[in-house]
Amino acid sequence: MSGWLCIAGLGPGDTDLVTPEVTRALGSATDVVGYIPYVARITPRQDLTLHPSDNRVEMDRARAALAMAADGCRVVVVSSGDPGVFAMASAVFEALEAMPAWQGLDIRVLPGITAMLAAAARAGAPLGHDFCAINLSDNLKPASLIEARVRAAAEADFAMAFYNPRSNSRPDTFGRILALLLQICGPRRLITFARAVSTPAEQIRTVALAEATPEMADMRTVVLVGNAATRRVGRFVYTPRSAG
Amino acid sequence: MSGWLCIAGLGPGDTDLVTPEVTRALGSATDVVGYIPYVARITPRQDLTLHPSDNRVEMDRARAALAMAADGCRVVVVSSGDPGVFAMASAVFEALEAMPAWQGLDIRVLPGITAMLAAAARAGAPLGHDFCAINLSDNLKPASLIEARVRAAAEADFAMAFYNPRSNSRPDTFGRILALLLQICGPRRLITFARAVSTPAEQIRTVALAEATPEMADMRTVVLVGNAATRRVGRFVYTPRSAG
Repeated sequence: MSGWLCIAGLGPGDTDLVTPEVTRALGSATDVVGYIPYVARITPRQDLTLHPSDNRVEMDRARAALAMAADGCRVVVVSSGDPGVFAMASAVFEALEAMPAWQGLDIRVLPGITAMLAAAARAGAPLGHDFCAINLSDNLKPASLIEARVRAAAEADFAMAFYNPRSNSRPDTFGRILALLLQICGPRRLITFARAVSTPAEQIRTVALAEATPEMADMRTVVLVGNAATRRVGRFVYTPRSAG
Repeated sequence: MSGWLCIAGLGPGDTDLVTPEVTRALGSATDVVGYIPYVARITPRQDLTLHPSDNRVEMDRARAALAMAADGCRVVVVSSGDPGVFAMASAVFEALEAMPAWQGLDIRVLPGITAMLAAAARAGAPLGHDFCAINLSDNLKPASLIEARVRAAAEADFAMAFYNPRSNSRPDTFGRILALLLQICGPRRLITFARAVSTPAEQIRTVALAEATPEMADMRTVVLVGNAATRRVGRFVYTPRSAG
């Protein structure tokens, strides 16, 4: 039995941002497992089976991938961005915890360019000082915890990156977060909406908090909030290296 | 004049973690600028001039790179990891702010695999939920601000990544941070010391906070601290996707 499992990050969209490590793992895989739009990014081959699955079935997908690796398959679980940032790596380890028999499997996590860093690079360097990454989805945690973390980060003057800022199932959360930020950070704080970075649909827009509205974000958007020193230079926005 | 400037991330060390985008920029560059050990990672070519410089001269280096691009050179400023995370992108934008004449230059930031995400991938998925990145160097900010941010992050139960945890010039800072974490997070919280990730000198070690000592980190180490739910599974450490 020579099966293995790689949990790999495909980066934000452009194949030029996929690491050679991930490309090589895909090249020797027998099976690719993941959310439908991420599996759609893999070039089909005759000796490669694609297993696309729907959103919100992460645990089923993780168990199926581990079972295939235990059967001798060479399996790549694909995530967009980095697999360790609000993505499949934690789901696979949760599944592994429940199945001690699989804990001897050859499992590796292959990092990728995560959305917030691709977005920051396009905008300039808004995360150039201490920053937080916060998932605004309340599928897996209470909205009160999300608000408490945003408050703590804003009060300590971290720059921030928000993943999954907005969905149709919870249209109000992001509006409340914007109101909270406005209260703590003031109307002139810079906020960047980065949609579909590195794809043909890319849109980058930086505004002052006073002008920000919930409609500026959707589920393909990463939102970056500067710290108190973040400013514009030419067409860029950046956070200086010194603070305090 | 067809000069340009790319501020590029080389990833943590392994060439397999350099994106094709960065490799291509280096391939068409006339000049590479950066800190000595990062420039040493570039393959020399007859039509490429390497400009290695010492640590702590970031602003001189940024101005020199902009001046060369303004003169028509094709310049890549290289950082380890990602250029937007405690690295050269902010320094270049600081230099640009002081020189409006250069603000029309063709400038791009090319993201890279940052140390904390490469380290997290090796360890499992310790940053699998909301997390903060904090630079523990007090070269550019007061120690009191560092401690206030670590305290805020720990109290809000973020996972954390510390860059530049320890140097000879300030051997006590990291010991104070460990003591603060022990007080807020308790002795059983998991902490990972990841040294020289993806290089032949790589060392990954996860211990409980009660066992952590300042000597476990040096300037080549990234330190990852789990949140209250972070746990071990087999040889890995991971943070579940749900919390609260």
